[in-house]
Amino acid sequence: MKPSLPIPAFVPTTAEPLRDGDMLAAIDLGSNSFHMVVARYTLGQLRTVDRLREMVRLAEGLDGKGGLHAEVRQRAFECLSRFGQRIRDIPRERVRAVATNTVRALSAPQAFLVPAETALGHAIEVIAGREEARLIYLGVAHAQPPKKGHLRLVVDIGGGSTECIIGAGFDAIERESLQVGCVASTRRFFDNGKLTRRKWDEALVEVSAEFQQFAGTYRTLGWQEVLGSSGTNKAIGEICAELGLTKGSVTPEALAVVRDRLLDAGRIDAIDLPGLSEERRPIIAGGVLVLEAAFAALGLERMAVSKAALREGVLHDMLGRSRDEDPRDTSVAALMLRYGIDADQALRVETTALQLFDQVATAWKLGPDDRLMLGWAARLHEVGLVIAHSQYHVHGAYVLENSDIAGFSRQEQQYLAALVRTHRRKIPKSAFNALPDRLLSPARRCAALLRIAVLLHRGYDAREIPRLDAAAEGRSLAVALARSWLEPRPLLRTDLAGEPANFAALDIALAFEPI
Amino acid sequence: MKPSLPIPAFVPTTAEPLRDGDMLAAIDLGSNSFHMVVARYTLGQLRTVDRLREMVRLAEGLDGKGGLHAEVRQRAFECLSRFGQRIRDIPRERVRAVATNTVRALSAPQAFLVPAETALGHAIEVIAGREEARLIYLGVAHAQPPKKGHLRLVVDIGGGSTECIIGAGFDAIERESLQVGCVASTRRFFDNGKLTRRKWDEALVEVSAEFQQFAGTYRTLGWQEVLGSSGTNKAIGEICAELGLTKGSVTPEALAVVRDRLLDAGRIDAIDLPGLSEERRPIIAGGVLVLEAAFAALGLERMAVSKAALREGVLHDMLGRSRDEDPRDTSVAALMLRYGIDADQALRVETTALQLFDQVATAWKLGPDDRLMLGWAARLHEVGLVIAHSQYHVHGAYVLENSDIAGFSRQEQQYLAALVRTHRRKIPKSAFNALPDRLLSPARRCAALLRIAVLLHRGYDAREIPRLDAAAEGRSLAVALARSWLEPRPLLRTDLAGEPANFAALDIALAFEPI
Repeated sequence: MKPSLPIPAFVPTTAEPLRDGDMLAAIDLGSNSFHMVVARYTLGQLRTVDRLREMVRLAEGLDGKGGLHAEVRQRAFECLSRFGQRIRDIPRERVRAVATNTVRALSAPQAFLVPAETALGHAIEVIAGREEARLIYLGVAHAQPPKKGHLRLVVDIGGGSTECIIGAGFDAIERESLQVGCVASTRRFFDNGKLTRRKWDEALVEVSAEFQQFAGTYRTLGWQEVLGSSGTNKAIGEICAELGLTKGSVTPEALAVVRDRLLDAGRIDAIDLPGLSEERRPIIAGGVLVLEAAFAALGLERMAVSKAALREGVLHDMLGRSRDEDPRDTSVAALMLRYGIDADQALRVETTALQLFDQVATAWKLGPDDRLMLGWAARLHEVGLVIAHSQYHVHGAYVLENSDIAGFSRQEQQYLAALVRTHRRKIPKSAFNALPDRLLSPARRCAALLRIAVLLHRGYDAREIPRLDAAAEGRSLAVALARSWLEPRPLLRTDLAGEPANFAALDIALAFEPI
Repeated sequence: MKPSLPIPAFVPTTAEPLRDGDMLAAIDLGSNSFHMVVARYTLGQLRTVDRLREMVRLAEGLDGKGGLHAEVRQRAFECLSRFGQRIRDIPRERVRAVATNTVRALSAPQAFLVPAETALGHAIEVIAGREEARLIYLGVAHAQPPKKGHLRLVVDIGGGSTECIIGAGFDAIERESLQVGCVASTRRFFDNGKLTRRKWDEALVEVSAEFQQFAGTYRTLGWQEVLGSSGTNKAIGEICAELGLTKGSVTPEALAVVRDRLLDAGRIDAIDLPGLSEERRPIIAGGVLVLEAAFAALGLERMAVSKAALREGVLHDMLGRSRDEDPRDTSVAALMLRYGIDADQALRVETTALQLFDQVATAWKLGPDDRLMLGWAARLHEVGLVIAHSQYHVHGAYVLENSDIAGFSRQEQQYLAALVRTHRRKIPKSAFNALPDRLLSPARRCAALLRIAVLLHRGYDAREIPRLDAAAEGRSLAVALARSWLEPRPLLRTDLAGEPANFAALDIALAFEPI
């Protein structure tokens, strides 16, 4: 649940507010289709001006060993270069591209992401399953605002994963992401192209087991309405309507009819259902299977269909960030509360870190996103203390890398984790390994700034540091501190004297100067 | 702080209550000395009947690469075999041997521990620094009960580490363990045998920095009295008395006189202080240095000396365990609360796991300690959910292995972590690597029982399992479940069918039988 916490009075986030007429774009590299939606910001609202969709079937390219077949890679890059052409004139901070389950499943995601980013001409963020769930809910909730006080269940069946969310208003309360999807399930259970009742029943037990993990919790919480998003749900809703079973929604009875039609066909290539497109036919069996499992496990009686999905959620998330409603701020505040972080110390460290940042940002080509990361890392640098004082920087990095933190992409979590990992003690060279190349240099530089800020506040002293001048040039960083302030602080002087050696691992030549 | 939490109404711990006349022994493998204390339980109290102490100087044997010099190893084994002779007639569950800082610092502790356990004829537990701090406080508090409502600071300067504790009554509130000790500091700063004022001042800054990390927190909390335990503090107190500076306590002024006498001597082998034993002379300089840093950083005005220490704490901890006041129960309950664990589900899993345990314990040679571990692992198996649902068994193992959990030794934490790591999904062969050989087979067997219990309760169903028969023989485990109960549970049947393959990694042949 997005808790309604008081966000501490830290420095505000730096996203520029949107102006009337600004364009935004969201791109979603799904396991089945790649989507792009372009919207114009008008009168405080987003108005969709363009949509692109290509059924790339990325999940089909998985080779079972974490690799991706060359032809599917090629298909993806070609699609992305077409998308890239469309976003060329939109400012880069107004574009967000996210990759989901299939990219998460790659053993070496960078090997796909680096050429993919080149083709698109824009960074691509990998998001975790629960973050995907949050964004899907956000997209659906903006397209069809839920009734006040109503809880809503949203089910989104993707190519490789399925998301189930219970939410109220625009906030996701429960978010789950399962490793079952229409492409993956078709491949897994019906790889030989045959559809038999026996195989179906076996498959249904296995897929239901996935839903069973959280079905109890969900049913206890309950909901007043159910919406299905994703191409699979839309297609099944259309088939139900075409067959005259419903007016476009899905019911258990209608779903049973659709399933029996599949089993009667006996083979995937013999499926003949009204309203079903040619390109969806090869993957509809897995989709119907997953939806039947969801209906059974969650006891659904009727599901309406929503046209909005992940990409619309990404757009609305960008809109929120530009309005000082950045969900990442809320998540960081929630982590601070949950793990009992000393907010006074966090604020002191953040203030000093950003003071350093603002002096070197231009010389070091650090942007507003880096400033956000540095600020959040400062707020969270003591998070590992909840586990133990010994090696708490390591524990903190573990928590930040592995937690389900709403609003953050994987790379952003890895960026935060790297900063927290290196804020004290020895800096292992491997600390930045998980980051894509484009983030390597900014992350190391922000790590340097956080480290200095933590060092200067090691005494938990509330008094202000009288003077702190920083200058950067290439790989050099010079920090000047008032001699009169350093003089009575022998411990700090000892600490500072050891830092230039530590900074070698950041590839930064550090010099402290008393002035 | 030991929180006064309601311990859930789980099965009671299984330690036998003590009877009048029972003997207990505690052994402490310190970095400077090895100690043993033997006590008789009489009229609800412990009465010391024997003490042994040998200055093994284990820390001197550290080679800087995590190894131990052969002659020091040999010295340790010979001491332990003498201790072993003394405890031969005491029941093994009434003996506890703990190893501290130097063994913690070994890169391959098992290479030392296995022959050490053979020499002693008893298992040796490695305890973390903060657990050592808790036990020291417990020993001191029992020897000299603090005044009601008073906070007490205890400082214990060991050979390799120094513990600082603030406590009230018998409970440690703040516990810190620093990597500075009398042997280690003497070696580090005065390795050439010379004592100069300049070197002393430099060393004092470095050692003070360690205390500075928590000095602010400690001074804010405050205390009414200060006690120093350990041989170093006793020796310094005696020197102060012999010099006529105090009646045996330590003050900043007296400490300054002792320090100046050291510096006047100029060399370690020229130190001549009344009351200082020959065997302590080589390491007194490091001890005075650490104590001076503690006095300065914490602003101490007077420190009395206590004769009790870690070994007495270990004795009183055993006494508590035998009286259903096992601090480990309290710690587990605190973790459950802190991390919001579903106590109903934990209780269901624990009940079933112990039901299985009690049926196979004899055949599998599992003892009361294994039963405790299995119960606690069941209570904590969902602890990783606080980080994320995905891979929560891995996160849970991380938390249990790295947390500072009062009352548990390192091996016990690793035992718990291994059980939680393997309670679901694939079992990596490496999951039990950290455990000593003697725990390998019991841990794998308890892991098997926990896994089955979790599986049977996967549906979070509060209804009782009507029948659950388990039989073990060698590497085989047969579990029988009622056919009528299995019939309507196809998901469970699918899960069960997959388990025998998973159990191969536990080296256990599993068979499920419907009856």
